[in-house]
Amino acid sequence: MKRWVSMFILVIAISFILSPSIILCAEKVNWRMGSCWTPAINLFHGEREMIKYVKEMTNGKFVIKWFPSGSLMKAFEYFDACSKGVVEAVGDWTSYWVSKDPAFDFLGSMPFGFTNLDYLVWYYQFGGWKLYNEAFGKFNMIYFNVGVTPMESGFRTTEKTGPIRTIADYKGKKLRTPARGTIWVLKKLGAAPVKMPGGEIYLAVERGTLDGAEFSSPGIDWEMGFAEITKYWSVPCWFQPASQVGVMVNKKAWEKLPPQYKTIFKYACKAAAMDSLTFHEADAARAIEKFKEKGTVIVKLDDESLRKLDELSGEYIIQALRERKGLFGKILKSQMEYLKEYSDWREMTGKFGFGFTPSYVDKVLAECEKLGIK
Amino acid sequence: MKRWVSMFILVIAISFILSPSIILCAEKVNWRMGSCWTPAINLFHGEREMIKYVKEMTNGKFVIKWFPSGSLMKAFEYFDACSKGVVEAVGDWTSYWVSKDPAFDFLGSMPFGFTNLDYLVWYYQFGGWKLYNEAFGKFNMIYFNVGVTPMESGFRTTEKTGPIRTIADYKGKKLRTPARGTIWVLKKLGAAPVKMPGGEIYLAVERGTLDGAEFSSPGIDWEMGFAEITKYWSVPCWFQPASQVGVMVNKKAWEKLPPQYKTIFKYACKAAAMDSLTFHEADAARAIEKFKEKGTVIVKLDDESLRKLDELSGEYIIQALRERKGLFGKILKSQMEYLKEYSDWREMTGKFGFGFTPSYVDKVLAECEKLGIK
Repeated sequence: MKRWVSMFILVIAISFILSPSIILCAEKVNWRMGSCWTPAINLFHGEREMIKYVKEMTNGKFVIKWFPSGSLMKAFEYFDACSKGVVEAVGDWTSYWVSKDPAFDFLGSMPFGFTNLDYLVWYYQFGGWKLYNEAFGKFNMIYFNVGVTPMESGFRTTEKTGPIRTIADYKGKKLRTPARGTIWVLKKLGAAPVKMPGGEIYLAVERGTLDGAEFSSPGIDWEMGFAEITKYWSVPCWFQPASQVGVMVNKKAWEKLPPQYKTIFKYACKAAAMDSLTFHEADAARAIEKFKEKGTVIVKLDDESLRKLDELSGEYIIQALRERKGLFGKILKSQMEYLKEYSDWREMTGKFGFGFTPSYVDKVLAECEKLGIK
Repeated sequence: MKRWVSMFILVIAISFILSPSIILCAEKVNWRMGSCWTPAINLFHGEREMIKYVKEMTNGKFVIKWFPSGSLMKAFEYFDACSKGVVEAVGDWTSYWVSKDPAFDFLGSMPFGFTNLDYLVWYYQFGGWKLYNEAFGKFNMIYFNVGVTPMESGFRTTEKTGPIRTIADYKGKKLRTPARGTIWVLKKLGAAPVKMPGGEIYLAVERGTLDGAEFSSPGIDWEMGFAEITKYWSVPCWFQPASQVGVMVNKKAWEKLPPQYKTIFKYACKAAAMDSLTFHEADAARAIEKFKEKGTVIVKLDDESLRKLDELSGEYIIQALRERKGLFGKILKSQMEYLKEYSDWREMTGKFGFGFTPSYVDKVLAECEKLGIK
């Protein structure tokens, strides 16, 4: 009996000494994570890297099962599912949620605005993460950046349609594009923008229902078969210089996580963001050769057209600011302040740096002042 | 007695189930890590972030004690110390080790060459990491990138010396700079480059022994007091468009790590690289205002001078390639191939992207071919 007691004490003692480790590392956690992407659209790169890192770093104990768009539910249904806790997490491109709240719009991409490094520097060093969390917090979620893509491809047009070299070339053309800002600018230029799901573009262009289309990055556009149905590729993609991608997490699910798993999740996202940043750059660079071999002709917009597009983008942004104000305005102000603080350094690094300062920064900030945005 | 037996079996069973977790997470590991930086030089940012992430993710079990330059030993002595296992790890800028092996030179920075994103994309997506490890492997070490800085500040000159706006302005000037490539180019331009440790620059410039100097990034230059002793700041810094920073690890120490700690260390480095990338951009951007307020005048090199400096940098690189060949050549070839593969995308993104393609890429690759570099 005495031995039994001493053994019992020993078990308790060992448990006590090892307890933080045992509890934290032995705990099995299984999450379900929806995604806005299908297995054919590699914008999932950052989120899937994160899942891998979390599993490896917890020695297989914290497992996040990934459900692409269309498996558990449709892509756009995952937002509510995560907000309600039906799934614990969702991989997204934040601009998708603009119909839920206008604040989400420029957190995903910004016409003639943030480049990929801009999103990252702003998120990690200029308080961007706080604003993402303010926006997602309204829906019972927290948010983690898991990367960013470079400039999208831009418009591709058919042999019959001809190339887009100047803003005059947009006139009268039926072009598929989904974003509000792009549609607004195209209409000003006399084009006929058309909203259409990704899966329907190929046939519409092939049959001549559309004069051209834009979809995603060069790597993904290649997978979509665009080299077969279009001849001209007009660059740069002024309306989507970058796309920020991240993971939203249900707040209750987050709070239930052991503290060590929270830490591991957080840094896994940050490491995945580095992989995503570099992966999407490499993926874009590598896709070009394949398009060229298939006969795609790359044409560039002239400087005067780019100047005008910069101006029109600024007009659209100021109009959106006046209509939306609130958290959208607060986020936009922070983004413009970053661009302004960054502009001297950008000017000094020139071609040794990255990107540019849009001409509309001062105008938008003046409007923020006028509207009393804090 | 029966109860004792069943309790014993229970303890064994629980230990068996929990054992991998207990062993992996409970194991205390203490490392000593030297650094090439002092607490005043924030190039340590990436390595210290990594140390923090490792500690947090292992719940305080894997602790890396950080020893700045001059504490355990002098900065440049840490290389041998790590190679021999006196310290387990060292935070570095790889070009410091060019006297150990010429292969290290352009792994740290490259005159008129890689920008910060170039280093990261090449390291993470174009096999750069393998070449770092080939170079460090010769010295019984493995290597992890923990970040990269943007362009350094470039030359600062005194009021008496006057500004550097063209290559003609370099002529006759005594300028502090330590790198071989920069010294070679400055001599070609008729300047008098001077090697001098960082700590001696302030007095030498103040007393007029030097006409000007370059040291590090804008944030660090500010801390060095350069705003007090110089008037003109000439940009861009063509001779150091970026600095790659990393952590070398003694191979035996690495092999002794529990597998889970290896995984955590690896991803902590990657997450720290993201923080470092964005931190150094923000730090540079924020330092400029302070210089301006102190009366520093920013002048820019003209395009023709930059074209000539690009050309001279290419000449230097080809000469270095002929002298060194071997692993240096293999690394350089991989770097040039990356630049070439990347050039179309860079051209297409324009100001929505980053950096530029140096004019010497084709020439260097032709030389690699001639020298039979594989």
